[in-house]
Amino acid sequence: MVSALASVATDDHARLRLWLRLLRTTRAIERQLRERLADAFDTTLPRFDVMAALDRAPEGMMMGELSRFLLVSNGNVTGIVERLVSDGLIARGHRDGDRRAAIVRLTPAGRTQFATMAAAHARWIDELLAPIDPATAQDITATLTAFRSQWEKEA
Amino acid sequence: MVSALASVATDDHARLRLWLRLLRTTRAIERQLRERLADAFDTTLPRFDVMAALDRAPEGMMMGELSRFLLVSNGNVTGIVERLVSDGLIARGHRDGDRRAAIVRLTPAGRTQFATMAAAHARWIDELLAPIDPATAQDITATLTAFRSQWEKEA
Repeated sequence: MVSALASVATDDHARLRLWLRLLRTTRAIERQLRERLADAFDTTLPRFDVMAALDRAPEGMMMGELSRFLLVSNGNVTGIVERLVSDGLIARGHRDGDRRAAIVRLTPAGRTQFATMAAAHARWIDELLAPIDPATAQDITATLTAFRSQWEKEA
Repeated sequence: MVSALASVATDDHARLRLWLRLLRTTRAIERQLRERLADAFDTTLPRFDVMAALDRAPEGMMMGELSRFLLVSNGNVTGIVERLVSDGLIARGHRDGDRRAAIVRLTPAGRTQFATMAAAHARWIDELLAPIDPATAQDITATLTAFRSQWEKEA
């Protein structure tokens, strides 16, 4: 019994330590990306994230889809979208001519600007994660992908 | 030459995929924690993070130390600290009686409340990360810890 309890305690600890490390690594990389996006492109990480999501959706996305994809609230996305529209980088439209299905999509100018930023972003990530060899990166990605469970799908 | 170039492309891809997965996993877990902290304790994740940082520093932390530890801006922390002070959960003071070294620390009430929340938080993490076995969790933690490089220490 004692060893079973000890094992449970260790298990908890391993997952909690992993979570704290995931959080710290992610925040440190995000801080780097934030600084580099500001320096190189005078833009922000949330703007980049919105443009990245729309770049994967040539037919555009509804605001609710965009929020769910980014895992942030609709309210947060609205202000970013409005500024990107006024900057001419994204445009509003309707899906399949359905006036109830309002969508946003990248403009050609937005797509061009995003391609330049995405290439820099990929180089930065490769540099920041350089100590992790590609095979290990693949293993960790597989573990974390397999772990997408019910609660993530619902999120 | 072709295979060397192909290998470089694959390497870039593996790290970029890992980064996107880290980000998505972290955001999904944070969303879960945010909802559970609100439901169970009527509190927020930034409040929990500030209290967690102070729980590890019985002698208190200066505001700058707290911001650096949390990897957020000093401005963001200030408002959270002010509300925790008015709730009686943290208190202002000075380190070693030095009036220039203003610090904040948990009050006894704050320490008690945090202990209850921390126990629930550890259970939630163990549940949310249940599909990752403890040995794998330790391996991933080790990889991500080894990878703390110069740019993270500077952050």
